[in-house]
Amino acid sequence: MDNFQFCNPVNIVFGKGQISRLNKLVPANTKIMLAYGGGSIFKNGVYDQVKDALEGYNLIEFGGIEPNPHYETLMKAVEIVKDEKIGFILAVGGGSVLDGVKFIAAAAHWDGEDPWEFLTNRKLLASSAVPLGSVLTLPATGSEMNSTAVVTRVSTQEKMAFASPAVLPKFSILDPTVVFSLPEKQVANGVVDAFVHVLEQYLTYPVNAQIQDRFAESILITLLEEGPKVLADRNDYDAAANFMWAATMALNGLIGVGVPQDWATHMIGHELTAYYEIDHARTLAIVLPGIMQVKRKNKREKLLQYGERVWGITTGSEDERMDAAIRKTVEFFESFGIPTKLSAYGVGEDFIPVICDRFRQRGLTGIGERGDLTIEQMAELLYLQK
Amino acid sequence: MDNFQFCNPVNIVFGKGQISRLNKLVPANTKIMLAYGGGSIFKNGVYDQVKDALEGYNLIEFGGIEPNPHYETLMKAVEIVKDEKIGFILAVGGGSVLDGVKFIAAAAHWDGEDPWEFLTNRKLLASSAVPLGSVLTLPATGSEMNSTAVVTRVSTQEKMAFASPAVLPKFSILDPTVVFSLPEKQVANGVVDAFVHVLEQYLTYPVNAQIQDRFAESILITLLEEGPKVLADRNDYDAAANFMWAATMALNGLIGVGVPQDWATHMIGHELTAYYEIDHARTLAIVLPGIMQVKRKNKREKLLQYGERVWGITTGSEDERMDAAIRKTVEFFESFGIPTKLSAYGVGEDFIPVICDRFRQRGLTGIGERGDLTIEQMAELLYLQK
Repeated sequence: MDNFQFCNPVNIVFGKGQISRLNKLVPANTKIMLAYGGGSIFKNGVYDQVKDALEGYNLIEFGGIEPNPHYETLMKAVEIVKDEKIGFILAVGGGSVLDGVKFIAAAAHWDGEDPWEFLTNRKLLASSAVPLGSVLTLPATGSEMNSTAVVTRVSTQEKMAFASPAVLPKFSILDPTVVFSLPEKQVANGVVDAFVHVLEQYLTYPVNAQIQDRFAESILITLLEEGPKVLADRNDYDAAANFMWAATMALNGLIGVGVPQDWATHMIGHELTAYYEIDHARTLAIVLPGIMQVKRKNKREKLLQYGERVWGITTGSEDERMDAAIRKTVEFFESFGIPTKLSAYGVGEDFIPVICDRFRQRGLTGIGERGDLTIEQMAELLYLQK
Repeated sequence: MDNFQFCNPVNIVFGKGQISRLNKLVPANTKIMLAYGGGSIFKNGVYDQVKDALEGYNLIEFGGIEPNPHYETLMKAVEIVKDEKIGFILAVGGGSVLDGVKFIAAAAHWDGEDPWEFLTNRKLLASSAVPLGSVLTLPATGSEMNSTAVVTRVSTQEKMAFASPAVLPKFSILDPTVVFSLPEKQVANGVVDAFVHVLEQYLTYPVNAQIQDRFAESILITLLEEGPKVLADRNDYDAAANFMWAATMALNGLIGVGVPQDWATHMIGHELTAYYEIDHARTLAIVLPGIMQVKRKNKREKLLQYGERVWGITTGSEDERMDAAIRKTVEFFESFGIPTKLSAYGVGEDFIPVICDRFRQRGLTGIGERGDLTIEQMAELLYLQK
């Protein structure tokens, strides 16, 4: 096991009816920005619950944060936060609203020229931010319990991440009943997103980290078992609760301590979203099987362990077992109506050299847990998934 | 899954060589109490490492905190903390030193008559405490990442617990190399202590909490597999690291969220320690098999799940499988040289009515996850373990 530091102070308030406790969590003596997305919270009743719980609070609303939140939109909120001297931002939404709010919170305290700097330059840390909290409406990204955010700059078709302890939510309310009204596509995306988050921290090389491995497998198995139940019956509270807690645990840092991490799937996937606006989870479902195939030698031990412990694959040669593990993963994604080939999304092969050039221009020579996934292999895996 | 709140802000600094980072974790501008136990830290080099890391700090030492830390000893430290205006307490030791420091820290801020109040009266919360941190020297109790402490009052032969967010360590350094010099008995106690902590939160009744169940099973399996490795070769760093992280995860709150909890084993075990000074872990190894037996109907589903997922018991009638799960647990404890019968510790049957009377006097009618383990059943299970 590698050395590590782990500190996750996010206060998780989990369960049905918990939104009513907002007035015990949000500071009373300051101006609050209530930030949300495209309006689903008006349909599922969450907006009303939030407003009821915060009656008497000084609220300023900022709606319209889009999926893959846009820098351009968020900068408008930054101005409001500064002008209105907002003291707390409450994100009500899914991962995009949360990520957007993290950016707004940090950008409002940024004293450099342009807050985009702390996304493009990993050496710059957004060390201060307006305090924030969240009411999660979509289990998927884990943003409710971590310090990371991903923002898209439309003008340059860039999708970039930043991380800072300053943007850890003070609290996140996870009420599984929000799942009841989710469309099938969002459930499917959420399950696949969480599943890939786990694999990015697990499917690397072994460092004898038993707790991390077994916790990761626990989350994968829970998603495998509970995901289809949620899809089949959106009103199954227990299935929704297990899905929701699994998605949070998938990316709150715990399973990633002391182990190598990959994240190549996310890096390549972000480009697919930035260029073609393919849903984040779907880009992961496209890229990951390609990486599993191209990097099967690198990932041999963990791929075999994954096959055995998660899918029960115990017979056949090593190659056959690895093939079976990859095939099972693809079948799982596709069983949720998520295709794993670029062509299914109308993306042609001509896209592949463009993406590779992009990584080349950024000076990246190798990514992944060993830093040896080359730009040539990136092309190779994308051709596999064409 | 039941509703829950979870917030654990302890900063875990894990790995070899991490003690040298103490000067980045302990505040520099205040007087520090360095608290420890019977002196093992002088033999294993931890004391020197701590002193080196804190060179130039204003340190006041307080040694001699005994196993099952004594209220009487700790109150001496409380006086020093008050007189010397100590601003931070660093616990260097195992669970007893940590628990002792939590008591000292809270008692020093207590403005009631006698700090013993917040142990005997669960309605009184120690809401303020001197900030504290720890360097863990013995994986076992999980105290390094939770808000609980257990203190023994010698004069009344009472062993009582309290919990408060105020006594959560600001940080805990977990360097697995401390395991290298542990005597066999302490490793055995540590493994069994952590194992029972998990079972107290797991072996109840099912509430469809998949992540919690699987995480609990992950820790149990890790302890099963890694414990014997540590015992066989104390210098196996990876085994020590897995054992250490498993013991911390066993009682940091995570596996207990949203699920019923038992703790009857601990409540009864504490009496055994208070009266006979039997090591804490050993009292658990005595009491738990009795509770598993007496409460087998109550715990049926989870006992079967435990047998199957942890011990691979899949054949036989339900009763046979439950018997096998209990037997495997007993064999596991005994394989570490820890007897599970009272007689092995020189405790006679005459002790049993004394204990039962004690619970009766405190007005307890039923304990355990359903509050239905009666005082009569307590006697029954102790006679089973005589």
